Amino acid sequence: MKRIGVLTGGGDAPGLNAVIRAVVKTAKNDYGCEVLGIRDSYDGFLMPDGVFPLGHRDVRGILPRGGTILGTANRGNPYARKVMRDGKEEVVDVSNDIIKAIKDLKLDALVVIGGDGTLRFAHDMFLRGVPVVGVPKTIDNDIHGTEVSFGFDTALNIATDAIDRLHTTAESHQRAMVVELMGRDAGFITLHSGVAGGADVILIPEIPFKWETVARKVLERRERGSLFTILAVSEGAKPADGDASYNRAGDEMYVPRLGGIGQKVGEFLERSGIETRVTVLGHVQRGGTPSAFDRWLATRYGSAAVRVAAQGHFDRMVTLMNGRITDMPLMDAIAIPKRVDVNGEAVLTARGVGISFGDE
Amino acid sequence: MKRIGVLTGGGDAPGLNAVIRAVVKTAKNDYGCEVLGIRDSYDGFLMPDGVFPLGHRDVRGILPRGGTILGTANRGNPYARKVMRDGKEEVVDVSNDIIKAIKDLKLDALVVIGGDGTLRFAHDMFLRGVPVVGVPKTIDNDIHGTEVSFGFDTALNIATDAIDRLHTTAESHQRAMVVELMGRDAGFITLHSGVAGGADVILIPEIPFKWETVARKVLERRERGSLFTILAVSEGAKPADGDASYNRAGDEMYVPRLGGIGQKVGEFLERSGIETRVTVLGHVQRGGTPSAFDRWLATRYGSAAVRVAAQGHFDRMVTLMNGRITDMPLMDAIAIPKRVDVNGEAVLTARGVGISFGDE
Amino acid sequence: MKRIGVLTGGGDAPGLNAVIRAVVKTAKNDYGCEVLGIRDSYDGFLMPDGVFPLGHRDVRGILPRGGTILGTANRGNPYARKVMRDGKEEVVDVSNDIIKAIKDLKLDALVVIGGDGTLRFAHDMFLRGVPVVGVPKTIDNDIHGTEVSFGFDTALNIATDAIDRLHTTAESHQRAMVVELMGRDAGFITLHSGVAGGADVILIPEIPFKWETVARKVLERRERGSLFTILAVSEGAKPADGDASYNRAGDEMYVPRLGGIGQKVGEFLERSGIETRVTVLGHVQRGGTPSAFDRWLATRYGSAAVRVAAQGHFDRMVTLMNGRITDMPLMDAIAIPKRVDVNGEAVLTARGVGISFGDE
Amino acid sequence: MKRIGVLTGGGDAPGLNAVIRAVVKTAKNDYGCEVLGIRDSYDGFLMPDGVFPLGHRDVRGILPRGGTILGTANRGNPYARKVMRDGKEEVVDVSNDIIKAIKDLKLDALVVIGGDGTLRFAHDMFLRGVPVVGVPKTIDNDIHGTEVSFGFDTALNIATDAIDRLHTTAESHQRAMVVELMGRDAGFITLHSGVAGGADVILIPEIPFKWETVARKVLERRERGSLFTILAVSEGAKPADGDASYNRAGDEMYVPRLGGIGQKVGEFLERSGIETRVTVLGHVQRGGTPSAFDRWLATRYGSAAVRVAAQGHFDRMVTLMNGRITDMPLMDAIAIPKRVDVNGEAVLTARGVGISFGDE
Repeated sequence: MKRIGVLTGGGDAPGLNAVIRAVVKTAKNDYGCEVLGIRDSYDGFLMPDGVFPLGHRDVRGILPRGGTILGTANRGNPYARKVMRDGKEEVVDVSNDIIKAIKDLKLDALVVIGGDGTLRFAHDMFLRGVPVVGVPKTIDNDIHGTEVSFGFDTALNIATDAIDRLHTTAESHQRAMVVELMGRDAGFITLHSGVAGGADVILIPEIPFKWETVARKVLERRERGSLFTILAVSEGAKPADGDASYNRAGDEMYVPRLGGIGQKVGEFLERSGIETRVTVLGHVQRGGTPSAFDRWLATRYGSAAVRVAAQGHFDRMVTLMNGRITDMPLMDAIAIPKRVDVNGEAVLTARGVGISFGDE
Repeated sequence: MKRIGVLTGGGDAPGLNAVIRAVVKTAKNDYGCEVLGIRDSYDGFLMPDGVFPLGHRDVRGILPRGGTILGTANRGNPYARKVMRDGKEEVVDVSNDIIKAIKDLKLDALVVIGGDGTLRFAHDMFLRGVPVVGVPKTIDNDIHGTEVSFGFDTALNIATDAIDRLHTTAESHQRAMVVELMGRDAGFITLHSGVAGGADVILIPEIPFKWETVARKVLERRERGSLFTILAVSEGAKPADGDASYNRAGDEMYVPRLGGIGQKVGEFLERSGIETRVTVLGHVQRGGTPSAFDRWLATRYGSAAVRVAAQGHFDRMVTLMNGRITDMPLMDAIAIPKRVDVNGEAVLTARGVGISFGDE
Repeated sequence: MKRIGVLTGGGDAPGLNAVIRAVVKTAKNDYGCEVLGIRDSYDGFLMPDGVFPLGHRDVRGILPRGGTILGTANRGNPYARKVMRDGKEEVVDVSNDIIKAIKDLKLDALVVIGGDGTLRFAHDMFLRGVPVVGVPKTIDNDIHGTEVSFGFDTALNIATDAIDRLHTTAESHQRAMVVELMGRDAGFITLHSGVAGGADVILIPEIPFKWETVARKVLERRERGSLFTILAVSEGAKPADGDASYNRAGDEMYVPRLGGIGQKVGEFLERSGIETRVTVLGHVQRGGTPSAFDRWLATRYGSAAVRVAAQGHFDRMVTLMNGRITDMPLMDAIAIPKRVDVNGEAVLTARGVGISFGDE
Repeated sequence: MKRIGVLTGGGDAPGLNAVIRAVVKTAKNDYGCEVLGIRDSYDGFLMPDGVFPLGHRDVRGILPRGGTILGTANRGNPYARKVMRDGKEEVVDVSNDIIKAIKDLKLDALVVIGGDGTLRFAHDMFLRGVPVVGVPKTIDNDIHGTEVSFGFDTALNIATDAIDRLHTTAESHQRAMVVELMGRDAGFITLHSGVAGGADVILIPEIPFKWETVARKVLERRERGSLFTILAVSEGAKPADGDASYNRAGDEMYVPRLGGIGQKVGEFLERSGIETRVTVLGHVQRGGTPSAFDRWLATRYGSAAVRVAAQGHFDRMVTLMNGRITDMPLMDAIAIPKRVDVNGEAVLTARGVGISFGDE
């Protein structure tokens, strides 16, 4: 193994730099191998200066930093490129150009760090002759093939810290506090941080909630003397009964205004006579220095990816399974998305400690 | 001095418990004085069990905790109480009841920890014979009579940490990031944390902004190769030119939808062709463990309030002036609200390091 | 199941309160069961007021708090008690008294949260008729039967944060920085935080180090232009060649003075002409608010322990195996202590990213 | 003003990079001025590549980073240089070379960021014709001319967080916990963080302590039912009665072994029959990301230094006085070191909340 490439694709996740650093250090220290960095996901292959050598000096000090020194891209399809032709925008297929560019680099391996989308294209490239090794990046923890990936633990700590802070201020003021957290399709961040932070209500995409139940939970707590309620809400949480609902105050139909689900829940509670405040954490959850666990896992992934490549195993993804780093076929890893098991031990635990999912 | 009371009023601020603890410990240790806690601001005086003895044991372990063990109230007027009379809600004046209840307790001093509103009523009570000493609580730093109060530093650290985290993810993705921070009338939190976090644009109530300027700043940065922009926006930031504006893309009139100003700025940027994400930190800024500075200042305030009371000085507020703890007449302290000096050294510094206030 | 007891034994670990809270809430919510708290590990059974009812109110707000509301004890043998007899201290066996006290309480289950030592006595009690369920507590991660337990992740974050901070100051000053971390017999904390923090040298109990190699590594880094070195040292790290060694400066025999191994390493480096500073983190690693992961795991453990008890399964320990909460026979879980696999993937990864274990 | 230089000297302090960044940005944005960075304090003037242009790009992203991108030096005398002459080490005076090198650079101003020592040489250089402006750097807060400088607040937060963590573990285990903090001559860090963290005993250089009193305090607390004691000890704390003392257990003379004062206090307590653990925070207090306050202050200092230089005022130091940024003659600022006022309001407050200084 003489030369490998590395790129990062998709959304940001704390730990990307730690993977890159481990790839560079392991490849150089253990295999004496040259490493090329590719800028902005697959785009770098077709970009001037989009491919450049990565040495020890380039990765110095990046371990504790969020973001990615390689840049990334978050568009759907790296093969599709918009060009202007005769004054009109047109989409052209650049897949052949990318494949050719990669082959011209004579890479012994291409380490692709990315989510579902990015890894699917890695698999396609493998089919077209590129020796790819995948590293899963999923801050939402929704890739089936790995128990957990880097970034998730950092997001949990940030979300849990926010819930902690809301607790003290909610306690003093007798309010409902809604915090909208990441998770469009999978509720892991909200479930874990909701339990860790001691939220009272958790709304996740996997368990459709009822507007009335949510308001009733808050009012029941009030009647029992708990004068505040913390609601942790995934951005992808969905009401079972649609957006329209009856206002608690009377019969009037209530149609929440546009806006994130966090704000909608807040507005519904206010209309039900409950003073409410809303926090939308947003991208704060994706940035900043990775937690110790995320750096440790990311470093192991990066190192393992180099070893898998050195063994000549391609079209595979490194993964954490049963507490160990191993690897598995790329498509097996990403074929089925991972979701919160609505009847599993975690949800059972949450219900046991008194948390409502708004579905009763 | 044989018996003093202590209460907390208004919004939450990290450090309230540290003041209460210092009042209790100093009164007992240095003056052998009994301390009574009053629940839920002035409401406790008319509440069953609303007044109760506070001992060393009650304040054990509360130093690092956010919130207030006394509870608080955040309504406008403690003298006004809603009652039901003949099936109708009526507002009655309970000021005489409160004053009588206080006098019946035979307090040698009443330490009132609160903001502008709470302290005004403390002054009124003094005029009616209650020996009050005030402790300023202003997370927004908008009380004229003190250089700074507790809670502000904690809010700054939380806001700055959020901006730090947005930086790394904005860098990776070439986006604008809007973070809405506390500050309805005073922009100190946004100004200080914006400078400390390295924001590119800061919008505060004291400096009305122009929609076009804000968008232009983001685009100019893009043209100069800085592919992201962080905008720190006070919840009270206001456009100079009203809510309506022209969309950058064309001539079409743009009227931002309802919602916080952070979201409006985000929507305007999106319409101007700039991919944008919005974070609304909300009450996360008011809760949680106070910073070291806030605990230190809060402890000094609580101690000083007891000493001022022991000297028989009332209708005064403890304050931090010229780096020292001192005290001044209550009404002098709160008569004029404090605002960011738009031509002062701090704003000058911010502009010097390249920050735009959206007013050029 | 009508009545269960819960106690915490051994050293402190962030997450103990989260386990207690989950036991109380799950037992009450899901099984309508009474919960008794036992003070100071097994000592509470023989103490006045050492056993007391635990309700929802008692566990309110304890989720984010370090320590244990039940207290603990860290002596070797709970059965042995020192008494004064005829003016002389004598050790008497109180095991029968403890067993009798437990039986008199008519517990349907006793949840024992503790490490190796505490759990061995739980097993003994089972043999004498007490229906015990164990919850593993091991901040050092050295219990074979579980992939990880609560407290470890928090310790990692604290240790990694300390290493991060040493980095910046070491960089500015061209020094070696030694940080002594927890781990008398197992080096997991030092290994994981050393990798996560980017330490250059890691010394752990499982890999005896050579004095000369450690000094050489620092000097080699200096020659290559890296003007600082971070050394993460387990408190149980041991030199392969004994405490005596040659000073680099000459032939003179060097015998490090008494003191922790961190200080010894520091003194050796200083004598080798390397300016060095030493940090001893100590119990800072065991205290404070648990990380999100630790609260999440602790809550699941507490909940699972109640479910195991409700199924009438005793002499078992709840555990995290293959990423899932399950349970196994107590003695199987603790029979073999867990140690860092010196030839395993984790050490291989650490070496790959350029870390020395001082053994070359 | 066409060209200015900037250097950092002395020990590390979080916020150095924020000053450098503000100097560069303000000089370029507001004055169109070139900025030269000098490496490793004054040493850079005589070093190959020791002086180099600093642009916007060089200071990008350094605001949240500890350390200094310019490097520093912490030797006593920058004018003295060791050289080998005839096989012997000799110290030569290079002051003329440095002054000449500076003059050859034709700097309109040299911004010197440093402590007492570094600033004294800046004054000397001014006397020899160099247009210097000083920025105070004192993590210990011991420069008379400024209320506070950057780095101090960060150190306080780190120290306070450590004390918080020790609290929970001390509570669970009935121990004394000693934490040794920075402060060789001035006890501000220990005093402020001790009060903020709720320490029970604070030992600082300004108030010599008695061994017996320290042990008595711990035992008194124990008798009153507080089963733990936290002792915050400055590295420069000194016993009033010398290192020798009587052991509590009997008449035997106790002479603490060598080691830091934290360890000595720990050993004395152990010998007095009190189980004790010792933490030595060390350089962890000087590193890592600066707090919001420190970044804010550092930015204002850097900006102000450029403005002072632009006005042609030299031999002056920027300072925070009475809550405002101003400037004063360099030698006035550093002539008298600042120490804790042993009869001042801060110590009075600490005693009022029940803290012992070991001097009763």
